[in-house]
Amino acid sequence: MIVASLSADERACETRERIVTQAEQYFRQFGYQKTTVADIARALRMSPANVYRFFDSKKAINEAVASRLMGEVEAELAVIAAGTEAPPERLRRFARAMHQANAKRYMGDRFMHEMVAVALDESWNVVHGHIMRLDALVGGIIADGLRSGDFSVQNPAVASRCVHASLVKFCHPMILSQCAKGDPGPDLDSMVDFILRGLGAGTATAPALRPAS
Amino acid sequence: MIVASLSADERACETRERIVTQAEQYFRQFGYQKTTVADIARALRMSPANVYRFFDSKKAINEAVASRLMGEVEAELAVIAAGTEAPPERLRRFARAMHQANAKRYMGDRFMHEMVAVALDESWNVVHGHIMRLDALVGGIIADGLRSGDFSVQNPAVASRCVHASLVKFCHPMILSQCAKGDPGPDLDSMVDFILRGLGAGTATAPALRPAS
Repeated sequence: MIVASLSADERACETRERIVTQAEQYFRQFGYQKTTVADIARALRMSPANVYRFFDSKKAINEAVASRLMGEVEAELAVIAAGTEAPPERLRRFARAMHQANAKRYMGDRFMHEMVAVALDESWNVVHGHIMRLDALVGGIIADGLRSGDFSVQNPAVASRCVHASLVKFCHPMILSQCAKGDPGPDLDSMVDFILRGLGAGTATAPALRPAS
Repeated sequence: MIVASLSADERACETRERIVTQAEQYFRQFGYQKTTVADIARALRMSPANVYRFFDSKKAINEAVASRLMGEVEAELAVIAAGTEAPPERLRRFARAMHQANAKRYMGDRFMHEMVAVALDESWNVVHGHIMRLDALVGGIIADGLRSGDFSVQNPAVASRCVHASLVKFCHPMILSQCAKGDPGPDLDSMVDFILRGLGAGTATAPALRPAS
């Protein structure tokens, strides 16, 4: 009986995933506003009622799409955060990967921006969770840096939020795309130098900001 | 002759200002998309052709509205940047004023967001100029801090861009409003503490980040 029940759960999970995959494809191709739950159902050869068994609204489907995209970024970054590189280099690698992961998914894609705008507007709690999880990953690198003596901050939780906030320009889907039109800088490496200094890295050796490129 | 010519210029300037003022009022009230050049002309009891003598498109009117809003913020901040307070305190006051000036104008106002989105999308050069002018103001405070020995950075221009980029969350019209829904922090004062450290402020006395509130 338990086996049969698990199997039904697995099937439900699989159907759920198929709905999310189809929705993401349509959101990318036609945009969130123009995609209906009926369109998604039709593409999967199921009834809208069946889709509604899994998601009670298009908003809920969008949250699942957004969660999956953000989850992919989080998984990629978690590997870097858990690495063994010295904390300053690890933080730089983390910042670069965060930038690239978001640029790859969202940059210059107006339908992805539409999806993100809807998520920001209607499902802030989902985005909030993403920010918190990334803060926690940065916090882990900072904690390692405190243990190794590379960093010196009194409140690692606040510091991790400051680091993340300093990188908004390099990872927020909309800001990324705006800055891609040509912005006055800084480049990511200069920003990371500045952040490392804010974390007290190398204060003994008076680190310098890089010259402007 | 010169007097008469100046006076015509002055009248032209005044008409231009009236168009911008009326446009801003309608953009705020009905939104950018729903406002037409004909609506603006009608409210001013002039012909659309006359409006087009001053602005060749609605986009050009929007740029003038955006430039005026951004110019007000710049003027307010220029006064603070030129102040005599010690550079670290002046930078904190500057950051707070930048936050408040933007929050007052844009926070939670969906029609103002529409206007800003259009400006970001169609008139990036105007926004770019605003960013550059604010960078220059921050650069002035940093230069004073280098002279006073409060700050130590090798490249003040890059540092000023890093400071400004660190504050995106507190001054970008859209991000401001998103974060107002409740974000994981940091608060502005913690962020400024972090930035001051990035500028090498008080490295001799080992400044600490504030405890989480």
